[in-house]
Amino acid sequence: MTPQHQQKAEQWFRQIQKQIIAGLEALEAEYGDETAQFQLTRWQRQNKYHPSAPGAPGGGGTMAVLRGRVFEKAGVNFSAVHGHFSEKYRAEILGAGESGAFWASGVSLVIHPTSPFVPIIHMNTRMIATEKQWFGGGVDLTSCIPNTEDTARFHQQVKACCDRFDPDHYPKFKAWCDEYFFLPHRDEARGVGGIFYDYLDSGDWNQDFAFTQAIGALFLDLYRPLVQENAHRPWGEAEAEAQRLKRGRYVEFNLLFDRGTRFGLMTGGNTEAILMSLPPRTGWK
Amino acid sequence: MTPQHQQKAEQWFRQIQKQIIAGLEALEAEYGDETAQFQLTRWQRQNKYHPSAPGAPGGGGTMAVLRGRVFEKAGVNFSAVHGHFSEKYRAEILGAGESGAFWASGVSLVIHPTSPFVPIIHMNTRMIATEKQWFGGGVDLTSCIPNTEDTARFHQQVKACCDRFDPDHYPKFKAWCDEYFFLPHRDEARGVGGIFYDYLDSGDWNQDFAFTQAIGALFLDLYRPLVQENAHRPWGEAEAEAQRLKRGRYVEFNLLFDRGTRFGLMTGGNTEAILMSLPPRTGWK
Repeated sequence: MTPQHQQKAEQWFRQIQKQIIAGLEALEAEYGDETAQFQLTRWQRQNKYHPSAPGAPGGGGTMAVLRGRVFEKAGVNFSAVHGHFSEKYRAEILGAGESGAFWASGVSLVIHPTSPFVPIIHMNTRMIATEKQWFGGGVDLTSCIPNTEDTARFHQQVKACCDRFDPDHYPKFKAWCDEYFFLPHRDEARGVGGIFYDYLDSGDWNQDFAFTQAIGALFLDLYRPLVQENAHRPWGEAEAEAQRLKRGRYVEFNLLFDRGTRFGLMTGGNTEAILMSLPPRTGWK
Repeated sequence: MTPQHQQKAEQWFRQIQKQIIAGLEALEAEYGDETAQFQLTRWQRQNKYHPSAPGAPGGGGTMAVLRGRVFEKAGVNFSAVHGHFSEKYRAEILGAGESGAFWASGVSLVIHPTSPFVPIIHMNTRMIATEKQWFGGGVDLTSCIPNTEDTARFHQQVKACCDRFDPDHYPKFKAWCDEYFFLPHRDEARGVGGIFYDYLDSGDWNQDFAFTQAIGALFLDLYRPLVQENAHRPWGEAEAEAQRLKRGRYVEFNLLFDRGTRFGLMTGGNTEAILMSLPPRTGWK
């Protein structure tokens, strides 16, 4: 592991969390509740599932949640944790090696907007170090009521960002997203896609980090027009029902399949922070 | 495998489904909506996740759902399926052997009552045959607003039923239930307990079957007083909120940990039937 890289990445994850929080508060103020603010909760990691794991578990994070008028629930979490994977979980992790030692830091956000016309958005960037080290992340939309123009603009913006780094990134990471955010038991996609990448280690750390930073920095540009153009549109019970059901699918994906949720629960992360992604007002038929 | 046992068990599972359906419709008629009825949907098993699995998958089931005034959503499912486990899943199953052949039949019910004062109830009885064969099942309550008297009576009734068969059953199966229906990431029990048993194979099939039948037959006696004494009580937003959050915990358990949910999804069962247990009107804070 290379502590300078970790320090640099961690510092940036902290900073992008603050930047996104400020941007979302500004959006909420412009289109919804001027006074709504993120509530921050700091937590320390307790390795409660694996109290006998070797090495002192460490690290923690900051969970930030906004409950406003535009954003019914917006969660933007930062964490930086280190320790040792349990023996059972080790087999699932690249380069976990003999000791199972790991370090991980990242930012993860999920927004459940109040309006069924504003898509749910998810963004995550992270760096993980075991005996190997890599970046992962992505950004994707889940529309309760899909809108062709919104979706096309979103994909275009993401593609333009990817193309600045590597022409292979977008097609590869878009396909990965479609494959990853899929509910096999429903035979349906979770949302309308985006990009997903993992194990990004080109050999040029600075370049990989710059790509991850670009995705993080892109987020507000992606979400602003989706809010601007949709938050004011009136909706009725049919749209509210579509939103509840789509949110239910979101819950199914996150609890049955999501890697980050599983990583968090398996490494004694903060449950409230991990499950921050779960929506208020949900329902199954 | 012993086809006569399977036939006998399957026949009884079909019959107890009908009996419970009739009993719940009577309860709904007495305290809620006289006209509400279970809607039955028959399904055939399609081994969609493992199309290349050896052996023709087979079987199916009947999903029955009532949406009434007392029962916001009551699902009572019967299924009888057979085929071969996928190689990956085989390792998790007792006696799955070389071929991975299995037969399984059972009844599973989950009731989400409208009133937050009426507990959510879950009951399941099943027989599974691989190279071994056994019974499993149980019944347990999840109270959104726990009531000491209700809970005590429920446990007493279950204990009395168990004691008719074996004095060890109740303490063993009660402890198993507490251990099984537990959310480690929340460090909290899903509900207020009951019994859970699996791998029941005492060597006397008739006796084990009789016990399973007794649990099935007990169900209506257990749930009737809980409805009678609570369905009419007025409630407000605080109780409704407690119900939504408890239902959220129920979803977490079923998608993260439940064996039956996992068994169903892993063996190409009917998704709607498997996820019938998920509640309408849910929500996370």
